[in-house]
Amino acid sequence: MERIRVAVVGATGYTGSELVRLLSAHPHVEIAAITSRRELGEPVSAVHGALLNVVDQPLVPLESLPDHDPDVIFLALPHRTSMEFVAAQPQDGPPIIDLSGDFRLTDPEVYARWYDTPHVAPDRLATAAFGLPELFRSTIPGARLVANPGCYPTATALALAPLLKRDLVVPDSIVVDAKSGTTGAGASAKAATHFPDLFGDFRAYGVATHRHTPEVEQILSHVGGAPVRVQFQPHLLPIDRGILATCYARVRSSVDAARIAAAYADDYADEPFVRLRQAPPSVKQVRGSNFADVHVSLDERTGRVIAFAAIDNLVKGAAGQAVQNLNLLRDWPETTGLNQGPLCP
Amino acid sequence: MERIRVAVVGATGYTGSELVRLLSAHPHVEIAAITSRRELGEPVSAVHGALLNVVDQPLVPLESLPDHDPDVIFLALPHRTSMEFVAAQPQDGPPIIDLSGDFRLTDPEVYARWYDTPHVAPDRLATAAFGLPELFRSTIPGARLVANPGCYPTATALALAPLLKRDLVVPDSIVVDAKSGTTGAGASAKAATHFPDLFGDFRAYGVATHRHTPEVEQILSHVGGAPVRVQFQPHLLPIDRGILATCYARVRSSVDAARIAAAYADDYADEPFVRLRQAPPSVKQVRGSNFADVHVSLDERTGRVIAFAAIDNLVKGAAGQAVQNLNLLRDWPETTGLNQGPLCP
Amino acid sequence: MERIRVAVVGATGYTGSELVRLLSAHPHVEIAAITSRRELGEPVSAVHGALLNVVDQPLVPLESLPDHDPDVIFLALPHRTSMEFVAAQPQDGPPIIDLSGDFRLTDPEVYARWYDTPHVAPDRLATAAFGLPELFRSTIPGARLVANPGCYPTATALALAPLLKRDLVVPDSIVVDAKSGTTGAGASAKAATHFPDLFGDFRAYGVATHRHTPEVEQILSHVGGAPVRVQFQPHLLPIDRGILATCYARVRSSVDAARIAAAYADDYADEPFVRLRQAPPSVKQVRGSNFADVHVSLDERTGRVIAFAAIDNLVKGAAGQAVQNLNLLRDWPETTGLNQGPLCP
Amino acid sequence: MERIRVAVVGATGYTGSELVRLLSAHPHVEIAAITSRRELGEPVSAVHGALLNVVDQPLVPLESLPDHDPDVIFLALPHRTSMEFVAAQPQDGPPIIDLSGDFRLTDPEVYARWYDTPHVAPDRLATAAFGLPELFRSTIPGARLVANPGCYPTATALALAPLLKRDLVVPDSIVVDAKSGTTGAGASAKAATHFPDLFGDFRAYGVATHRHTPEVEQILSHVGGAPVRVQFQPHLLPIDRGILATCYARVRSSVDAARIAAAYADDYADEPFVRLRQAPPSVKQVRGSNFADVHVSLDERTGRVIAFAAIDNLVKGAAGQAVQNLNLLRDWPETTGLNQGPLCP
Repeated sequence: MERIRVAVVGATGYTGSELVRLLSAHPHVEIAAITSRRELGEPVSAVHGALLNVVDQPLVPLESLPDHDPDVIFLALPHRTSMEFVAAQPQDGPPIIDLSGDFRLTDPEVYARWYDTPHVAPDRLATAAFGLPELFRSTIPGARLVANPGCYPTATALALAPLLKRDLVVPDSIVVDAKSGTTGAGASAKAATHFPDLFGDFRAYGVATHRHTPEVEQILSHVGGAPVRVQFQPHLLPIDRGILATCYARVRSSVDAARIAAAYADDYADEPFVRLRQAPPSVKQVRGSNFADVHVSLDERTGRVIAFAAIDNLVKGAAGQAVQNLNLLRDWPETTGLNQGPLCP
Repeated sequence: MERIRVAVVGATGYTGSELVRLLSAHPHVEIAAITSRRELGEPVSAVHGALLNVVDQPLVPLESLPDHDPDVIFLALPHRTSMEFVAAQPQDGPPIIDLSGDFRLTDPEVYARWYDTPHVAPDRLATAAFGLPELFRSTIPGARLVANPGCYPTATALALAPLLKRDLVVPDSIVVDAKSGTTGAGASAKAATHFPDLFGDFRAYGVATHRHTPEVEQILSHVGGAPVRVQFQPHLLPIDRGILATCYARVRSSVDAARIAAAYADDYADEPFVRLRQAPPSVKQVRGSNFADVHVSLDERTGRVIAFAAIDNLVKGAAGQAVQNLNLLRDWPETTGLNQGPLCP
Repeated sequence: MERIRVAVVGATGYTGSELVRLLSAHPHVEIAAITSRRELGEPVSAVHGALLNVVDQPLVPLESLPDHDPDVIFLALPHRTSMEFVAAQPQDGPPIIDLSGDFRLTDPEVYARWYDTPHVAPDRLATAAFGLPELFRSTIPGARLVANPGCYPTATALALAPLLKRDLVVPDSIVVDAKSGTTGAGASAKAATHFPDLFGDFRAYGVATHRHTPEVEQILSHVGGAPVRVQFQPHLLPIDRGILATCYARVRSSVDAARIAAAYADDYADEPFVRLRQAPPSVKQVRGSNFADVHVSLDERTGRVIAFAAIDNLVKGAAGQAVQNLNLLRDWPETTGLNQGPLCP
Repeated sequence: MERIRVAVVGATGYTGSELVRLLSAHPHVEIAAITSRRELGEPVSAVHGALLNVVDQPLVPLESLPDHDPDVIFLALPHRTSMEFVAAQPQDGPPIIDLSGDFRLTDPEVYARWYDTPHVAPDRLATAAFGLPELFRSTIPGARLVANPGCYPTATALALAPLLKRDLVVPDSIVVDAKSGTTGAGASAKAATHFPDLFGDFRAYGVATHRHTPEVEQILSHVGGAPVRVQFQPHLLPIDRGILATCYARVRSSVDAARIAAAYADDYADEPFVRLRQAPPSVKQVRGSNFADVHVSLDERTGRVIAFAAIDNLVKGAAGQAVQNLNLLRDWPETTGLNQGPLCP
């Protein structure tokens, strides 16, 4: 059985630990190196206690990466740090799957505007594939750099793409009301995720300013063939994992429910990770899995379509999708290492 | 000090227990009777254990109500049952504050369509005041029947009214994405609120069919002076109490942020229960209180306003607002018995 | 109506905000000053957003306390800081109710051993009353310094005192397995209370080292008239508020269930804040209230008694009990300002 | 690769769905039949929505079981139903792994006393192996009937066995304070697991009466070679999955911490599913996995040892342990199909 060596760069966050969890069960993968800036020499399970006896290899410094001779590199770094790493790598180095936001926006100026920093590797950016297989599958095999999508954009794009692709809705009518569990806020303790305050709470954040907005617009504009502007509003759910995107759009006048249903069936019936639901999806029913559960309804009274997508933000919204991209890069069946059922209840 | 006798009809649900909790601390109120169909003769605390040593009076049958000679009657009954009770009461009986949906929709045909049953007391319906004091205060004193608003409509209307009143937004562009804690689903165990399934979950429900939709439209149409059709979509939050309504609307072309801010300040600066927030509100910061926390932002990039309101669905969304209406009926200061701070954290 | 001026020293923590919430609804109290080390000049609601429009007075520096001329001072300071404050106050200054651990242990050497620091005000310590009214009521009126008990000791002592007082159990057989919500860990964000990690989790902490151990032993030894050594083990519940103490002890040979039940009835039937339950108590049924719900069972098969007590750690375990002590100091009815029913559900 | 046919009898509960989830990822297993009393002909994912696209085979009636020719049968039935099924099976039928309580207690009279019903298959009971591999591994291969242990007994026995086996503690001093997530209460909605009531709550239940008590005593008595009586007290945690058992026992006079640590290291260092922890374990760090995390401390001040074990009640406490037993029955590596890391956070 083929086995390749992979490196996980930046393993102290949740994206890193989830990557290690998934990669440790992948039949074609050996984790060659897990890098960190702290706890060097300690087993990764000293940082992520749940991994004890699962993956106990020591954390190594980023500088030692070449010694471990990886075939593929996963970057689970903060943005900015990520593009600096890529800029320093040779173009013909091992393929990189980057889980940060640094290579998702194709226009460096848009990047600069929403991330408040100039892009330091525009040449590499120009070559990056966008790792959302259901919409951009053909571009991923052979890529040297894959930009793994954001969690909100993954859910939103899967919910809305069938509509945009067929011009069934009015582009500037799109409103995306999105809700995410708290793992999306990262592994570092901070006031915004202090348990006593957040328990039993719910609130919106990032009004008009969230960085996933241009990413959503870029995907939908590409899919629809024309510029799309969306109203994107995130909220913080008092749970650990899960995103639900509730997406509203006005349908074009001749569009009926049957046509909408056919569009989703055509696009997703054969997708291994998209499950079309007859009722609004539940984030718990995808927990721990790479599934995206999608449901769409037409409200004939108002002339709007409501499209829902639920994902696990750490899996289909991050590490699982990265493994799916690895499978595409290596021409393995796309579900390899990702066929565990959701943990529910 | 003036003291009146009140009756709580239907005390086995959460609305009933919350009414008893609030009324037991109201300085001008004596709870004369608490009726129930079951556990008759048992103290109310046999059904709602938290009330032990707070209110221990026995549950009495509905039929005995006249014996208790109430000055005001609160109805915490299911819809249908509620209007049947009202239809059987004399018009000159004690004033009634009804917490069901039976007297909220002014048009009996709209009621029949959304509640799947004909209205049995259209004459009383015609006389009902709508008990949302911030918008309809003048109609409440002197009313013989007050329809206490629904929880979602309360939050939504308070979020959007300043915009509609001044024609600042395009009426048919309104999308309301609402999220409620599970107490809104009632006190009876059912599959939809089975703890192991709902813990860590989040989902939408009632797509295009929720009965609060026409209530929201009726309020906003009245406030705006023209028909309003809204897209209303509820979701179930995995918490006990709290509603957040996130409301989107396209602003008219000449409207700027300053004008919007002025509208909210004008309408709410003197309202005792509306707190204007500089950031999106949190449901926990209103927990257990009668406050509605409101925030509004203009997204200049998209030309949409996003208005938020957070309430405790059992207080401002039900029992607390009912007490506020009682205070108006009796010409007591509106905050009487409602000045406890939120329980946070 | 009598009104006195009180000061809350140290208002940025949860104990401070809960004190402000309760005191703001107390009919005989005017909050004269709320001190803080940060956010000076800002309203207290800038730190505790839930208090907006409830208490908006500005935070003042500790140094300005005399200018506000308080009749009673509540200390909601960290331990050490608290005894330093007390040491600097004149003996004939206003009475102090201290919510820290600094004046609870009567023996300064025991304090030094468990708190890792010498006691700086042993003379004041010698005069402190222990503010657990149900067990030490007579000592509180007239005290110049009241040591408000810890949350765990309050629950544990109320669960076990009737047994110890009558020598019904073997003292060295006592095991206390205690569980607390996360507000007990304080208002500052830290890794131990990072939401994504704690959500859905449960664990023990402080094995053999928790500072409430000697406090529990001191109370029970005093009540029982002989030294008691307890096994005390705390756990962290993934909720915000609430403590449940499950207490085990071997009964003396002649003791039967009737005698145990009589002991609890005798001690607690007239206590306004202790509710004897026929089933194990629930922390939610005391939420936001000053109640302690107590239940006791004899397991005849094993010869052990199991005694439970549930309290809200911020109310009966801290701020509510402090207000109860204030009422005793001022000879007001003990329930003044504390008669709000629990917030349940 | 060897593949056998297994049947899951009774798939509508959580134990059944968890078995299906685990078995669907087991490399040597084909799920030949999933039986149910309801939803016959529907895919199992119609009952357990999370399994959509994972396992979609139709539910079949129990009567059709022989047609599916299973090599091994898993029983996920309620007690009583389970022993009736076994009694009706031929002794030389396929091996059975029973997840109910019906074949755990070796003495039918003890069964009758705690389960309130006579045992209907005492002959089969006499032949059952007790499927707790870490303590009874040698008895499992070759068994025709394996009694899969209860969730609480699994955690408790793994926490305490090293002490009992070596007579390090006083048997009648053992107190087990256990806490379980709500999935242990089953998949049917009931008042005790109504979300609004349980959210933010915590309480004990089953005082002196829980059926896992004799099971714990039987295991520990067997391990220790002398009768053991334990005080066992369960509590309901407001989470979905996870058990923590906190176990107290008085140590024999000559026992020190080093000897205790050596005992646990000797017993568990080579166990694939027991992880010795340097700190009290966390239920979340075992979520979704077959691990039991164990920690032990000696409190020298009190002379008691405190031993903790954390498991996922649906995995190591039920379905995962059943798969572990299957692996032993078939002489496959014990971790086959069980090497997924915990889902944390």
